[in-house]
Amino acid sequence: MTSKKLLNTVAGCADDALAGLVACNPSLQLLQGHRVALRSDLDSLKGRVALLSGGGSGHEPAHAGFIGKGMLTGVIAGAVFTSPAVGSILAAIRAVAQVGTVGTLLIVKNYTGDRLNFGLAREQAQAEGIPVEMVVIGDDSAFTVLKKAGRRGLCGTVLIHKVAGALAEAGVGLEEITERVSAVAKAMGTLGVSLSSCSVPGSKPTFELSPDEVELGLGIHGEAGVRRIKMASADEIVTLMLDHMTASSSVSRVPVQSGSSVVLMVNNLGGLSFLELGIIADAAVRALEGRGVKIARALVGTFMSALEMPGISLTLLLVDEPLLKLIDAETTASAWPNVAKVSVTGRKRSRAAPAEPLEAPDSTAAGGLTSKRVALVLERVCATLLGLEEHLNALDRAAGDGDCGTTHSRAARAIQGWLKEGPPPASPAQLLSKLSLLLLEKMGGSSGALYGLFLTAAAQPLKAKTDLPAWSAAMDAGLEAMQKYGKATPGDRTMLDSLWAARQELQAWKSPGANLFQVLTKAVQSAEAAAEATKNMEAGAGRASYISSARLDQPDPGAVAAAAVLRAILEALQSPAV
Amino acid sequence: MTSKKLLNTVAGCADDALAGLVACNPSLQLLQGHRVALRSDLDSLKGRVALLSGGGSGHEPAHAGFIGKGMLTGVIAGAVFTSPAVGSILAAIRAVAQVGTVGTLLIVKNYTGDRLNFGLAREQAQAEGIPVEMVVIGDDSAFTVLKKAGRRGLCGTVLIHKVAGALAEAGVGLEEITERVSAVAKAMGTLGVSLSSCSVPGSKPTFELSPDEVELGLGIHGEAGVRRIKMASADEIVTLMLDHMTASSSVSRVPVQSGSSVVLMVNNLGGLSFLELGIIADAAVRALEGRGVKIARALVGTFMSALEMPGISLTLLLVDEPLLKLIDAETTASAWPNVAKVSVTGRKRSRAAPAEPLEAPDSTAAGGLTSKRVALVLERVCATLLGLEEHLNALDRAAGDGDCGTTHSRAARAIQGWLKEGPPPASPAQLLSKLSLLLLEKMGGSSGALYGLFLTAAAQPLKAKTDLPAWSAAMDAGLEAMQKYGKATPGDRTMLDSLWAARQELQAWKSPGANLFQVLTKAVQSAEAAAEATKNMEAGAGRASYISSARLDQPDPGAVAAAAVLRAILEALQSPAV
Repeated sequence: MTSKKLLNTVAGCADDALAGLVACNPSLQLLQGHRVALRSDLDSLKGRVALLSGGGSGHEPAHAGFIGKGMLTGVIAGAVFTSPAVGSILAAIRAVAQVGTVGTLLIVKNYTGDRLNFGLAREQAQAEGIPVEMVVIGDDSAFTVLKKAGRRGLCGTVLIHKVAGALAEAGVGLEEITERVSAVAKAMGTLGVSLSSCSVPGSKPTFELSPDEVELGLGIHGEAGVRRIKMASADEIVTLMLDHMTASSSVSRVPVQSGSSVVLMVNNLGGLSFLELGIIADAAVRALEGRGVKIARALVGTFMSALEMPGISLTLLLVDEPLLKLIDAETTASAWPNVAKVSVTGRKRSRAAPAEPLEAPDSTAAGGLTSKRVALVLERVCATLLGLEEHLNALDRAAGDGDCGTTHSRAARAIQGWLKEGPPPASPAQLLSKLSLLLLEKMGGSSGALYGLFLTAAAQPLKAKTDLPAWSAAMDAGLEAMQKYGKATPGDRTMLDSLWAARQELQAWKSPGANLFQVLTKAVQSAEAAAEATKNMEAGAGRASYISSARLDQPDPGAVAAAAVLRAILEALQSPAV
Repeated sequence: MTSKKLLNTVAGCADDALAGLVACNPSLQLLQGHRVALRSDLDSLKGRVALLSGGGSGHEPAHAGFIGKGMLTGVIAGAVFTSPAVGSILAAIRAVAQVGTVGTLLIVKNYTGDRLNFGLAREQAQAEGIPVEMVVIGDDSAFTVLKKAGRRGLCGTVLIHKVAGALAEAGVGLEEITERVSAVAKAMGTLGVSLSSCSVPGSKPTFELSPDEVELGLGIHGEAGVRRIKMASADEIVTLMLDHMTASSSVSRVPVQSGSSVVLMVNNLGGLSFLELGIIADAAVRALEGRGVKIARALVGTFMSALEMPGISLTLLLVDEPLLKLIDAETTASAWPNVAKVSVTGRKRSRAAPAEPLEAPDSTAAGGLTSKRVALVLERVCATLLGLEEHLNALDRAAGDGDCGTTHSRAARAIQGWLKEGPPPASPAQLLSKLSLLLLEKMGGSSGALYGLFLTAAAQPLKAKTDLPAWSAAMDAGLEAMQKYGKATPGDRTMLDSLWAARQELQAWKSPGANLFQVLTKAVQSAEAAAEATKNMEAGAGRASYISSARLDQPDPGAVAAAAVLRAILEALQSPAV
C-alpha cells in the first residue's frame, strides 16, 4: 500500500510542485523544457555573479523558495530525491550567462549524484567558456567517524545560499564568493531527528519505527539515521543532539563551545506540528544558553524538508559580525523568514503584566441591601443549586453531556467558599463584578463564561445608581452581552429563555412607583413558565443543538437552573429581616 | 495509544511552544504570568490602535507568528484547541493600554469559547474605561446551509490580521479599522481538505479515514468535516473545493466569479509535504484562471495549522486596489511571507531556454585518425563490453547490485545505435564530447555520469592539439575530473584503479619520440594488473563500500570493464588499416 498523497501523477509531481511555486511567485520563471526556476529579473544581474543550486525535489521550500534578490539566482530540480539532469543544469548555467552575469557559482549538497551531475555540467559549461565554480556543502554532523563520501549536505545549505546571495548582491566576484562560502561551510553542523519516516510518492515509507523509538542522525531522503533511540522528552532529545553535534571525538563536529556565537536553525523536516517545532526551539535555546553559547540569530520554520517526515533538524553556524551582516542582509526570497536583526541571547524575553486597576471607591449607596442580606440571598441560591444537582444532570443527559447539575453545583460551592472568607460587598456593582470573576474562574465551561458575561455587563448600570430602574437596566445589559457573545436568542432552548422572560416583567421596575416584590414575583413565575416551555423547543444553540428535536422532551436544564436561581433570590429577599 | 510527539509535558506544551517562538524572535516578549506574547517595541505604539488576537494553541504559526510592525500587537494563546483565559486576555488589553495606545481591536475567530472569553475580557476592559472593539471572523465555506453558530474562523483570519495591521500602522482610528475589517471579512471564504486527522498531545487522533478517503470541509481542531470523499487527483479535489466554496446555493459561499480579483491562500494544515502544497497551488491557480478569476496575490505556506494534520485549506479574498495595498504593506511579522507586489495572473511564467551554442569549427587535425578507424575502435569496444555482460554482472553480484554488466552493455548498445546514424567525428575533441553526452543520457547511473565527466574533461586538451602529449594530458584531465566530483581515489576498488594505472604509463607519451603502441601496450597491461589487484582491496567508494571486505574476493567489475575497454582500443588501433 503506497501512502496517500495530494497529487496528479507520480511521474509529474516534481514538475507540478515547481510550477505551483513559480505560478504563485511572480519573481520567478521556469526555463522552458527544463525543471529549472530562475529569477524573472535576470536582466538586472548583468555584471554580477549568478548563484545556482538545486538537487532532488522533496525538500521544499528548498531550493526554489530561496530564489530572490539577495539569495539564489535559480535552481535546478530533479525528480523526488533524485539528482537533476545534467542537461538542465547546463541550460540554467547558459541562461544566466546569456544575460551577462560574470560567472556562476554552483551550490551543491554533498551527494554523489549531485556532485557528478553538477560537476559534469560545470565541466561542459567551462568548455563553452563560461566561468563556473562549485562548492559542495557537507554540514551533516551525524557520522562521528570519517566516511569516504564525506558529510552530507543538509539544512545548513540554506545558510550558504543566504551568505553567497548577500555577497553576490554586493557585487563581490566569483572567486571571492567561492572562497568565503567554502570557509563558512566548514563552520557549521546539522543533525536531524524524526518520529517516523516519509514516503516517496508512489512508494511505501522508507523505514519503520516503533511507537517508543526516535531516529537520530538521518538524512533528508528518508534514509535511516545513525542511531535509533528511545522516545524521550524534547529537552532530553535536544541535549543528546547538541552533545552529538559538538562531541570533541566526532570528525563531523561543529566546534561550538562556551563563548561561541552562533546562528541557530530549527528546521521542520516536513510533517511535524509547528507546536512541537516551537517546543524544540525553546529547548534548543535553553540548552545552548545553558552551555554559554550566544545565539545571535535563530531561524525557526520549514527550510529543507524530507517530504512529510515528522522530525526536525538543528543547524549551528559559528558567526562573527561580518558574517552576521550577510545573514541579516535583505532578500526577497519567499521562504526566507523575517528575522529581527537583534541578538537572541541577552535580551529581555518578558515584560511585567500591569497591575490590576485599583477598585474605584463605590459612590453608590447599597440600595437598601446589607452584606448580611446579600449573604442570605447567595446562600439560598447555593442551596437551591446543590439541591437540583441530580435533577439538572438527568435533564442534561437527555440532551447534552449530563454535567449541567455538576457545573452549577461547582458554582454553588465556589460561592459558599467565598462567603466563608468574609462578608460579601453590599454594593451591587461590586457584588456582581466579584461574582463574575468567581464564576468565570470556578464554574468553568460556557456556562461560567456566559454567567460571567451577564454579571460583568449587569454591573455597569449599577455603578451610578442602585434603584429599581437601575436593576432593570442591569438585567437588560446582562442579557444583551450574553446574546451578543453567546449568539443564542430567545427560543433557542437555553438559559436565556428563562432570563429573557423575567427581563420582560422586570421592565415594570422602570415605571415610577413600581413594587419590588410584585414585579419580581411575576418575573420568577414567568421565568419558570419559560423554562418549562423549553421542552417543546428545538435547540438552536449550545451542545443540544446537535441533537434531533424528536429526542428532546424535557425542559432545558440551563433554563430550569436560571429560573430556580431567580426564585431563590425572591424568597431570600422576602424572608424575615436579618 | 497516544500519538508520538516531541514535547516535554502535555500540560506545558502550549507554554513551551510560545516560549520558543518568543525566544527565537527578539521582536516579541511574553507577558509575565500569562500565555501572552506582545511586540517588544510596545512603547512605539503610543497614539495608535492596538490589535490583539489569539485563541487555542495548535494553530502555529498563528497567531504569534503574525505579531509585528504592520500586523498584530500581541496574541493570547489558550491550551491546545482551547480558548484562552479571560484573565490573560484582560491582562493583554491592559498592557497595550498602559503604553498609551488609543484603543484595542480584538480579532477573534468565530468559536463559542473564543467569543465568550474575548467578549468577557472586552466587557471588563470597557468597564475599566479602555476602548475595546471586537470583530468575530467567520470565513468557513464548508456549511452550505445556515448554522446558528455561524461560519467558523479559519485561515482567512490571517488576512484580517494583515489588513488591520496595515491600517493601524497607518494611524487609522479604532472605529474605522473595525468597520473596514468587518467589511473585508465578509468578502472571503476558506475550505479545508485533509488526508487524515491530527492528535492533541496526550490523545489519540480525532477521526479515522480509510486509505482511499479524504475529509472535506474540516475545521482546524481536528473535528471531522462536512463530507467524506473518495481519494482523487489534486486537480479534481481543487475543482471540487472551488465548486463548493463558490456554489450559488451555499449560504457561506464566497462570491468569486469570472472577472473577480482575489488573493489566494494555499495553507498547509500542518503535516502535508511542501511538495504537495506546491502541487495544490499549481492546481488552484490553473483552476481559478480557467474560471476567469484574476489572482492578484498568492500566499503559499503554513499560516493556520491544525497541529500535524496532513491537509490544506484554500482561502479566497475578493480584493480591489486599496485592499491590495494593505495586503502589500510592509510587515516584520516572522510568519508573513515575502510576497512580490505583482499580479500572479497575467505575467509570463517561463522564459525560453538559450539555444545550444554552435559547435566551434574544429581547428585541430584529426591526429591521424579517420572516421572509419574511430568506428572500428568503438565497435571493438562495444563488442568487448557486450561479451563481458554476464561476467561483470556476476562480479557485481558479490559486491553490489549485480547490474554492472547490464549498465555497460546499455552503453555499448547506445554507441552501436549512434554509429548506425552516420560516421563518428574524426576530431578527438568532438568525438569525446559526443560520447560524453551519449553515455550520460543512455548509460545512466553513477557510471554514466563518471564516464561522461571523464570524457568531457578529457576532450578539453584535445581541442588545441591531438598529438601524443595531448592524449596523455587528456587522460590526466579526465581522471582529475572523475576524482574531483566522484571522490574516489586509487586504491578504493573502483574503475579509477585501472584507469589510474594506465595513466601512469601514458605519461611516457609526453616525452619526445615516444612510441604510440609500446606505451599504450604497457598501459593496458598495467590497467589489467590493477584491475586484478582490486580483489585484495577494501571498497572505499561506491556501492561496494557498504560491504564488509571479508566478503570481497573478486576483482571490481568497474575496474575490469575499464581495463577491457583500453585493451579493445589498443587492439582496434593495431588492426590492419581500413
